[in-house]
Formats: sequence, structure tokens, C-alpha cells
Amino acid sequence: MTSVRRAQIDLRSDTLTVPDEPMRAAMAGAEVGDNVLDGDPTVRALEQRTAELLGKPAALWTPSGTMANVIALCQHLQRGDRFLAPRDAHVLLNELGSAAWLAGGMPEAIETDLGPGRPSPRTLERITSAGRNAPYYALRTSLLCLENTHNAAGGAVIPADEHAQLVATARDGGLSVHLDGARLWNAAVALNVPPAALTVGTDSVSVCFSKGLGAPVGSALAGSAEFIESARRTRQMLGGGVRQGGVLAASCMKALDRMGELAIDHANAARLASGLSDLGWDVRTPQTNIVLGAVADVERTLHSLRELDILAMPMAGRVRFVVHRETTSSVIDEALERISSELPSSAVHGTSQAGMRLHL
Amino acid sequence: MTSVRRAQIDLRSDTLTVPDEPMRAAMAGAEVGDNVLDGDPTVRALEQRTAELLGKPAALWTPSGTMANVIALCQHLQRGDRFLAPRDAHVLLNELGSAAWLAGGMPEAIETDLGPGRPSPRTLERITSAGRNAPYYALRTSLLCLENTHNAAGGAVIPADEHAQLVATARDGGLSVHLDGARLWNAAVALNVPPAALTVGTDSVSVCFSKGLGAPVGSALAGSAEFIESARRTRQMLGGGVRQGGVLAASCMKALDRMGELAIDHANAARLASGLSDLGWDVRTPQTNIVLGAVADVERTLHSLRELDILAMPMAGRVRFVVHRETTSSVIDEALERISSELPSSAVHGTSQAGMRLHL
Amino acid sequence: MTSVRRAQIDLRSDTLTVPDEPMRAAMAGAEVGDNVLDGDPTVRALEQRTAELLGKPAALWTPSGTMANVIALCQHLQRGDRFLAPRDAHVLLNELGSAAWLAGGMPEAIETDLGPGRPSPRTLERITSAGRNAPYYALRTSLLCLENTHNAAGGAVIPADEHAQLVATARDGGLSVHLDGARLWNAAVALNVPPAALTVGTDSVSVCFSKGLGAPVGSALAGSAEFIESARRTRQMLGGGVRQGGVLAASCMKALDRMGELAIDHANAARLASGLSDLGWDVRTPQTNIVLGAVADVERTLHSLRELDILAMPMAGRVRFVVHRETTSSVIDEALERISSELPSSAVHGTSQAGMRLHL
Amino acid sequence: MTSVRRAQIDLRSDTLTVPDEPMRAAMAGAEVGDNVLDGDPTVRALEQRTAELLGKPAALWTPSGTMANVIALCQHLQRGDRFLAPRDAHVLLNELGSAAWLAGGMPEAIETDLGPGRPSPRTLERITSAGRNAPYYALRTSLLCLENTHNAAGGAVIPADEHAQLVATARDGGLSVHLDGARLWNAAVALNVPPAALTVGTDSVSVCFSKGLGAPVGSALAGSAEFIESARRTRQMLGGGVRQGGVLAASCMKALDRMGELAIDHANAARLASGLSDLGWDVRTPQTNIVLGAVADVERTLHSLRELDILAMPMAGRVRFVVHRETTSSVIDEALERISSELPSSAVHGTSQAGMRLHL
Repeated sequence: MTSVRRAQIDLRSDTLTVPDEPMRAAMAGAEVGDNVLDGDPTVRALEQRTAELLGKPAALWTPSGTMANVIALCQHLQRGDRFLAPRDAHVLLNELGSAAWLAGGMPEAIETDLGPGRPSPRTLERITSAGRNAPYYALRTSLLCLENTHNAAGGAVIPADEHAQLVATARDGGLSVHLDGARLWNAAVALNVPPAALTVGTDSVSVCFSKGLGAPVGSALAGSAEFIESARRTRQMLGGGVRQGGVLAASCMKALDRMGELAIDHANAARLASGLSDLGWDVRTPQTNIVLGAVADVERTLHSLRELDILAMPMAGRVRFVVHRETTSSVIDEALERISSELPSSAVHGTSQAGMRLHL
Repeated sequence: MTSVRRAQIDLRSDTLTVPDEPMRAAMAGAEVGDNVLDGDPTVRALEQRTAELLGKPAALWTPSGTMANVIALCQHLQRGDRFLAPRDAHVLLNELGSAAWLAGGMPEAIETDLGPGRPSPRTLERITSAGRNAPYYALRTSLLCLENTHNAAGGAVIPADEHAQLVATARDGGLSVHLDGARLWNAAVALNVPPAALTVGTDSVSVCFSKGLGAPVGSALAGSAEFIESARRTRQMLGGGVRQGGVLAASCMKALDRMGELAIDHANAARLASGLSDLGWDVRTPQTNIVLGAVADVERTLHSLRELDILAMPMAGRVRFVVHRETTSSVIDEALERISSELPSSAVHGTSQAGMRLHL
Repeated sequence: MTSVRRAQIDLRSDTLTVPDEPMRAAMAGAEVGDNVLDGDPTVRALEQRTAELLGKPAALWTPSGTMANVIALCQHLQRGDRFLAPRDAHVLLNELGSAAWLAGGMPEAIETDLGPGRPSPRTLERITSAGRNAPYYALRTSLLCLENTHNAAGGAVIPADEHAQLVATARDGGLSVHLDGARLWNAAVALNVPPAALTVGTDSVSVCFSKGLGAPVGSALAGSAEFIESARRTRQMLGGGVRQGGVLAASCMKALDRMGELAIDHANAARLASGLSDLGWDVRTPQTNIVLGAVADVERTLHSLRELDILAMPMAGRVRFVVHRETTSSVIDEALERISSELPSSAVHGTSQAGMRLHL
Repeated sequence: MTSVRRAQIDLRSDTLTVPDEPMRAAMAGAEVGDNVLDGDPTVRALEQRTAELLGKPAALWTPSGTMANVIALCQHLQRGDRFLAPRDAHVLLNELGSAAWLAGGMPEAIETDLGPGRPSPRTLERITSAGRNAPYYALRTSLLCLENTHNAAGGAVIPADEHAQLVATARDGGLSVHLDGARLWNAAVALNVPPAALTVGTDSVSVCFSKGLGAPVGSALAGSAEFIESARRTRQMLGGGVRQGGVLAASCMKALDRMGELAIDHANAARLASGLSDLGWDVRTPQTNIVLGAVADVERTLHSLRELDILAMPMAGRVRFVVHRETTSSVIDEALERISSELPSSAVHGTSQAGMRLHL
């Protein structure tokens, strides 16, 4: 480590993006109203645009993706119902158990046997068929919760036809389907399809404006008009009903305008993965903006990176790098340069202490 | 009603206030960070200033006052615990039962025998003493939830000494104390004391920046460092953890600068009450910015007012007018002029259909 | 107090009744099965008989009245819904807040303006009409929970026609109706009507076999077939699904055979009340088996009675005596004799410390 | 299938055992009291005896094992906390999600890498160490829930030393430990150790009197005096507080006297497994009273058995036979005889439709 302080390269999350001048100007100029009493006009416009993008009749702004997801679970689940989600889904690991506390739901992780983040319809079918003809005293499974892209699986994408098969299998098994689409925009850009192509058949979809798209605050939940009407009530109970939300919705509108720019993040993620691979790292080729590295000791590697003024996060037993608007190609090159010159590959690899999941 | 459309005079709530140019500029220029991962610098500054104003070690920004209150209830109550609140408190009537659903709390309304919104220490003592030596199978009362100013009681103020006596009585009875201070700023201005004088002895206090102070979005919860640390976790579960919250916190900072201006609202509320009284209305002399009118038929009166392009709200069996930054003295005079010339007193009074609570 | 130990006279509750020999024999001889897997034949027979007695299509045995009530609330209430119950109802005061914790319900006590335990249809109508046309962000009231007889009101009875009016008013107001009939048998005997005459129009009814009827353990919930099917599931989740429940159901069957004998309890309660009144006590003439006494200091009076080896309980600010199978007329006379000779009326009356509710 | 109706052989569960004459006599002769108000003497005696058997300071009777488990989870878990349990544990699969609904807990199945029902301390350690130094916004794991014997793993036993290592690992990882000991008696008998040898270091233990021991109704929860005092309150809220519970406790006392007789069930289970194996079935050699068979099609095999008047149950993808007091060695022989003569092995085996878990 040199004594000269270098610029920090923060690859922990795309939630770190800060609003730029045009987005701030949009906020400052937003038309607003009391969104609890009357509906704020900018919030309403955002909700309508979001609903259209997602191919659903209605949408509801929420302060966070966690709130959007938990409202959906509250609506879909009866007391004690089991819901299925791909192994390491955000709703399983990263929402502090709100699925259980608030929605009373019992999670069950489905194996992702088609690839990272991708359960097969066959695996899903095996679970739902086991629950057929269950007696009254049996645990009831009522919801499939998909995630596209899948965060802990390294921004993995579920293609449209695979999504459709999973939804059809869930329906046949009597399940509702919620899609955690916090990074659905990335999936759509990666697949070059409209977002609505990836929501077909779902009962509800959550999306975020505050990750790669760069808005400071805001997510949304989309579904049928009746579903959203009830969700609005649940949002109010949870404390997510805000007043002049238009100042935030204006930034979310601006964020949506930039969806296409996510392709740049994806290219930069590929650049990072390729560079790390060249340096001997065990990384998965990214489909979107997340790069996972399998290392011998996650904590030690994160520490070594911090000494290079590079920040990353632990995620499901790996090191996760997230590329975003502020980590341009030159930032990526600078990160690779630091790693190349100061972090020997041997410090990253060697034998995993846990003896598992080292290879991707 | 004339065929010419007059400007609407909206006296439904002080939540209707919209951010002005300086506040918008503050938002646009806010220094921000990821408030979940690192703590946004502007949010942190707001939390520290709020804690100091309220005389507490720590504070936590929340998207709404409902969330601040429900987090507090979650922290204070064990499963099924009873909490006490003055009759018609916001937490009883206006938070959609989140106290029961989320905090598992059984509400009990205390009679406000000292005046509107003001239970006597003696009444409180009678309730707590009835629970002493209760067996294990008895309902347990564990929290007093005060409200200052009291919304449904017409912005009624609890003075500092009375507050202190209530808190002392609650403590003697083994209760924790939460203060719903959504309009605590109004109480402090009306009493000409610092806000912290009205929070003495409480375990937690919620306040709002989005009512009379005019911020678009934002509330806060204050308490001990340990309490707030746990509250931060609960906020995340509820979906109230936002990313670059600094854009909102900047507006809340600006809002706090304007606390003294609430005195203008109070003067205008007095002007409205006086004018209505001169027109034969049964109104209570306001202490802060809320004017309650007792009328024979609330729905009919609200309808008549709407025909004059004047909006008000029903509240606990009365008509509620809330005065705020945008309802200046000339707006109040215009409202009184319309009522005087077009709404006969006889249309407002007469015999109450319900036969109750007509007189204030 | 004498040094000779006298027989204790326990008037705390009719839950104290212990099974007699015929009831024990019935238990010992019960035909049983696994009630979770197959349905225990004796439990099924009891459920069918109970359903018929209550005029409902189906019934479900539960281990306690609290469980029967809380299952009903879980079924009737959505998250945060408000339910109405007469002031001091068992479900409000004596079930440890399970209504809030488990059913997420916000209780609201209705004034009992027609007499002890008896709210008027007009009062009910005023509450429901206030909720009409409420916006989405308003607390929603969805259930009326009646109690007949009303425990804390001294075993007060709601007559059939009054019940019918309350139910009709609730229906007009869009509410479901649950009847807590823990002592419905007493009401039916007092009014000389079949129990089903007192359940007309309700969605669900709970009853107890373990109070005046003398079974050791057991209650039931009755309603539509669909309601009970769902309730069976909720019972299992709460841990109320038992295996060879027939041993208990057999005692409940025996208990039902004795419904008519409750008239003896009612006569003995009248004997006690009359005797206490003659001794200068402020007691309410009982309609069923509960005698309430208004005294200056409840704790002190209970202590004085304990010194006479007479046990009673505090209930809603009064002293409650409950007469049951084991407190025969001679026991009542003995109690009155002890009070007459050893407890001066002046020790019971004088000025209430609390200064309230002294007179009945 | 013959036209002559043969005696049904019911191997679905040991919950099917019905009380015999001595047990019925004990119930009929039980000394009883009001267990909510005073503590029923027989219940108290049972609770004390159970606590001693389990090596804990206190115990609490409950109507079911599900209630004992859910009370424990409610006590151990904070809102949204994760708890760990071996794959296919009863608390995961067979309690209708009460862990999530009532205790707000997020379940996580641990791999049973040491053998059926037996997670290794190393696997446990890997999970707990991953949670060390977690930030405030991370899911928190707070409880290990063991199960001994493990039902869905075929009555598998965790030996005392292995139990101790798991508990020590959990403690090191900051977890509390609950033991679901519904069939702990079987484990103790199989290992020839006192039950308390298998509860060392746990915070709480649940046991059942109504399975192999043959009581009609009843379970218990044991732990520290403080834990049980609080559990008593939770039991009351759930509706598990019963009055003259002594009639049931008397049968549970009798059941405990018979613990040693479980060895007969174990011998009969071995007889059944051996016989099935001789007939070509893929069965696991049982350690206690449960025999699991891996078959090609569970539903089809259960149907074929029903045609032989033999009842079994599906369990975690296998056919489960449970041997108990009423399935004596001659009953087992009769079952084997029927299967041998009428159910060809080829009808049981062949290729699994699901293509998984066929071999044990």
C-alpha cells in the first residue's frame, strides 16, 4: 500500500449512483401534489409509464424495492403459506426476514439447476406436484417469486421463453407469480427485448429506479388494478405513503429515460471480468452489470482490495463487483491496474477454508 | 354556485404544502450518499440536528410519520401488549391499524378529561394502578403514546409541566412513553419553548417535516442510541431504507429553518376561527393551526363548502380546517367572505342527526 | 379471623367446576380416533351436536374459548381492520391481546348504552355510518363481536330481538358478526329460548363447555362449512389440533346434557345478590350466574373476603362472584353468613378511592 | 384384492395409538384444579416430572407438539430472524408455516451431511460464520432447531456426543438452541441413555406424550424457569390455556411410565424393515420406530397398500411406516404376509417418475 491516497473505486453496488445535474434539475422542477390525499401528478405519471413498460394495468411507487416486494408477498400469501424462490434470492437473504415477519410466509429455496439464478420448470413442477391433494393439515405453497436479473447469481438473466415456461408451470401448480425485477431493466437491455417481454404471466412485478438507472430513491410495484388498489392500502400501513412524492418521481422518470445506457455498464462489467480472468481470477462471465469472483477467503480478499482503495461486497460466498454509471471504462482499467500490480493472484486463490463453492 | 371558477382554497391539511424555490434548490444541491450502506451525509446531519432539537441522543429519518410511529410501537410493545393513547389519537384512528398488525398492540383510548387531547395524570394513574399485581393471564399495558399537538382535538397543546406529570405518572405505572410529535413544532411555537422542553422523559419521539414546515417528504424518530440502532433495522424491514435520501433530508433541513414561521399559521387559524364564530359557527378557539367546527351534518357542510371551492376534511365527527404556509391571511379572508355571502349559518347548524358532539 | 380453618368458598369463576363421576366415566369410556388424521368419532359427534344447537352448518372443537375467539377474528379480519365489541368485552380485556397479535385487529369498545353489556343499534349505526365512503387511507371497520352473556357486565343477557337488531345494523354497515358465546347457554336458559335463537344472523359463534356446564376442557366455534374448514387449518397452526380428543369431547357431550341445570345457578346467584343487598352491598340484580358488587376499594374487599375464606375476583373495577354447580344454595348461605357476621358493610363501602363507577 | 374385508393395519403414525384401560382409569381418577387460575395439581406434577426427565428447571404442558414448538420459536426469535433446522424437519414442513406466521421466523434448512436427519457441526459452523460481522441490514440468524429423533429422516437418532457438538457449535455462533423432541423418548431408548443426556445445552425442548407413549392428548415444553414463565403467557394467548387439564396430564403420567416399552416398537420396526428388504424393497434399517421405503411412485404404492388394507403415509418423497403399541409383531407379520403374497416388488420399484431420491 502506498502512502499516497488514491481515488476510491467503489464497486460495492449500483445503489451507490448519485443523481447528476439533469436529474437534480428535474427534481427541482417537478410538479407536485399530496400523493396520499389526491395523487401527486408526477407520481401518477411515473406509475402509468411504469405500468405500461411492464405490461401491467397499474403500478404503485414505493420508497424501496424491499417495500415493493413485501407488499407483494403480503397480498399473495395467506398466513403461513410457503413461497418458492431461486436459491440465494434477494427476498430470501437480503430483506431481513420481512417475508416471514410481515407476510407470514415460509420461504423455500428452489435449486437453480439450469444455471446461476435459473431453476428449471421440471424442478418447479416436482415441488408443486408434491403438494397436490395435500390434506388440510399440510403446509400450503402458494407463490413463486422469481428474480430477473438474479443479484446473488451475478446478475444472471432469465430469458423470455424460460420465464414463460416457469410461469406456466407455476400456474399449473396453482401458484401465483411475483417477479422481483429490481434489475429487470438490465435483463431487458441484455436480451434486447422490451421489459414487458419478461413479465408475461406474472401477477406482480417490482422494479427499482435507484440502482443502475441512477435515481436517488424509488421503486415500484405493478399488477392488476385491483391488486394495486389493495397494495396502496398496504403501503400506507407500512409507512410508505409520502406526500409530495413528485420530487422523487421526477428523478425516476429521468432514470427511465436512461435505460438504454445500461448497455455501457454491461460492457464495462465484461471488461472487468475479462481483466480479472486474465489475472488468474475465477470469475463468471457476466450477462449484465455484476461480476462474481470465487476466492479462497472472501473476507481476506475484500480486505486486500480495500488496501488498494477498491471496494467490493461479499455475496453468497463470493466477492461481488457491481459496475454502474460512475464506474466508467477508465475506472475499470484503473481497478485492474491496481489489482494487477499489487494483488498477487496467489493471495486470492489457494485453498478455500470452507472447502466449497470455490469454482464458479 | 356561480359559473365563474374561483381559486380553490384548500384547508384539508398542512400536508398539502408544496416545496418553494429555496427548498427545491436545497434539494437539487444536496450532498448525498448511499444511506443504507454508508449513511448519506445530509441525512446524518438532519438526524443529528433533529436529535439535538428534541433533546435525544439519536434520531432516524423515515419516509412518513406513520412509519416513525409504527417503528416506535414495534420497539416498545411485546406481543399483545396494550398501549394507551388519548381519545382520537392519530395512532388510533389514522394509521390503518398498523399498531395492531405490525406491532401487535391493543390500543386503549384514554379519556381526555383535562381538555381536548389532554388526559389527566389522575385518569392515567387509575388505568395503570388497575394493572398492578396482575396475574400472568392478564392483558399487560406497557406504553403511553402521547400526541402533541393533538390533531383530532384541533391542534390542542399539552404544556410542558402537564407533559412532565403525565410522563412521571406513566413511569410510576411501569409504562414506556412515546410521543407522536407530528406537529410538535407547532406546540413549541405556540408555547414559546424549545421542542426539547416538550419531550422530557419520553423514550421516543416522532416528528414530521412535511406538514406545517413544508418539506415534501420526511419524518423522524428520536430516542436513545440503542433504540435508534434497533429502529434502523426495523425501518429496513418495513422498506423505509432509502439510498440517496439526502435529496429529501436537504428539504427537511430547510423546513426546520422555518419553524418560527408557524406562528403566522397560528395567527391565521385564529383569524379563521374568529371569523367563523362571528358568522355563528360553533368553533373552538385554536391554539395552533387547526380549526374544528361542530356542525349538524359534517358531510353536508363539507359539500356546501366544496361548492364554494373551499376544501376541508371530516375529523372525529367535526369539520376540520388546517391553516398552513399557503393559506395566507388574504386567503383566509377570501374563505370567510365566501362563507359569509353564500353559506347561511342555518345550513351549518340546526339539529345534529347523530344527536351528539355538536357543541365544542 | 378465627384460628379454625373453614371450608373455602370459591366464587372466582365457573371455570373452577370439576368433572363429576358420570362425566369422568364418559371420558373413560369414550370412543376415540386420531382427530388430526381422520376425525375422532366423539369429537365429530360433539361438533355436529353443537352446530345443530347453535343453528349453524358446522362446528369445530377447540381447547379453549380464547382459541375459538381468536380463530374467528383471524378469519374475519384483514390486516389492521378494526373490530367493535361492547365495553369490557372478554375479547378486549381478557385474552392478552391475541386479537391484535394474532388477528392484527384494532379493537374499539362500543358504549353499552342500553344497559350493562348491551350497546344500542343506534350507537352501532353511528359508528358504521361514520366509516361509509371512507378513503383508502382510512382505518376500516369490518367486524362486530358481541358477547352474550356479557361477563364483565355481570352475566348480562342480550335478548333475541335486540340481538337481531344489532346483527341487522351490523350487516347494513357492512360488518361481519362474531358472537362470543362462552356463556351463551346461560343466556338461553335465562331467556328460556333455544341457543340458536340467540345466534341468528351471525357469521360465527364460540361457546364453552368448561364453564357452568362443568366439562374440564373444551370450547367450540360454529359457522358455515367453508368457515369451519378454514378454521380447522388455523386451529392446527395455533397448535390446537389434538389427537384422541374424544376423551374430552365425551365430557363436553355430558356437559351439554346439563344445560337446563344452569337455572339452579341463576337462582343461587339471585340468592347471593339478594343477601348481599340486604347486607347493604351495592350489587346488581343478576340475570344469570354472575354477581357484581360495586365497592370502595376492590383490592381491600377481596382481601377481607379472603380472610373469611371466600374467594372472588376483580372484574372491570368491581368485585365479581360467579355461582356454579359446586356453589349450592347452602354454600351461598354460608358465604352470606360469614359476610354478615364478620365483614361490616362500612368496610366495603365508604368513598371510592378512584371516585368512579362505585354505583351499579 | 379379495372380497373378504380384512382387519386394517394402520401404520400411518404413532399418533394413532388410543388410550388403554389403565390409562383411561388414570384419567377418570385424576385430581384436578383450574390450571389457568391456580395450576392443576396433576398438570403441575407432570410438568415437574417432565422437567426432571429433561434436565431442565421447568416445563409447561401444551395441547400439541406444534404449540410447544411454536411457543419456543416465539420466545427465541425476534422479528424476521432466521432459524436453522435440519432438512425436512417437522417445524419446516409439518406445522403449516406457524414458524413464519406466529414467530416471524425465516427458516433455513441445513444439509444433513452426517446422515439422515444429522447435520454436521462443520456445516453448521459454515453457516454461522458467514453471519459474523454482518451489517445492520443483514438477515440475522438466531436459533438452531434440532429434531431428535428426526421424523422425516425415518426416526433417525442424533447421539449424545454429536448433539453436544452441534450445541457447542451453535453457541459459538451466537445461536440459541431448541430441540424438537416429539420422539426424544425413542431416541433415549434406542441409545439406552436418559432423555436428559440428549438435551444438554439446549435452551428449550419440546416433547410429546401422544405418539409412541400412547397418551391421547398432550405435549410439553421445557426450559429455564424464566423461559417457561413467559411461555405460559404465550400459551394463554394462543388459546392453549385449559382448565382441568389434570384429566389429560394423568394420561401423560401413565404414558411416561411406559417409556421403556418403546424398545418393543423398535424391534417391530426392525422386523418390518427386514421383511420388506427381503421382499426386495429399498428400505433404510430403522434406528427407532419409523421405516422409510424408497419407491418409484409414492402415491401408487400407497394406493396398492390400501388395497391390502394396509395404511402408510407419504413423507418427504418416501413411503413412511410407523410402528407403535398397537402394531404388535403379529400385526407386522400379517402386513408382510399380505405384501409378500399380493404386492409384487415390481409394482413398487422400477424407475422413479421424478428421477430422484429413489435409493435410501
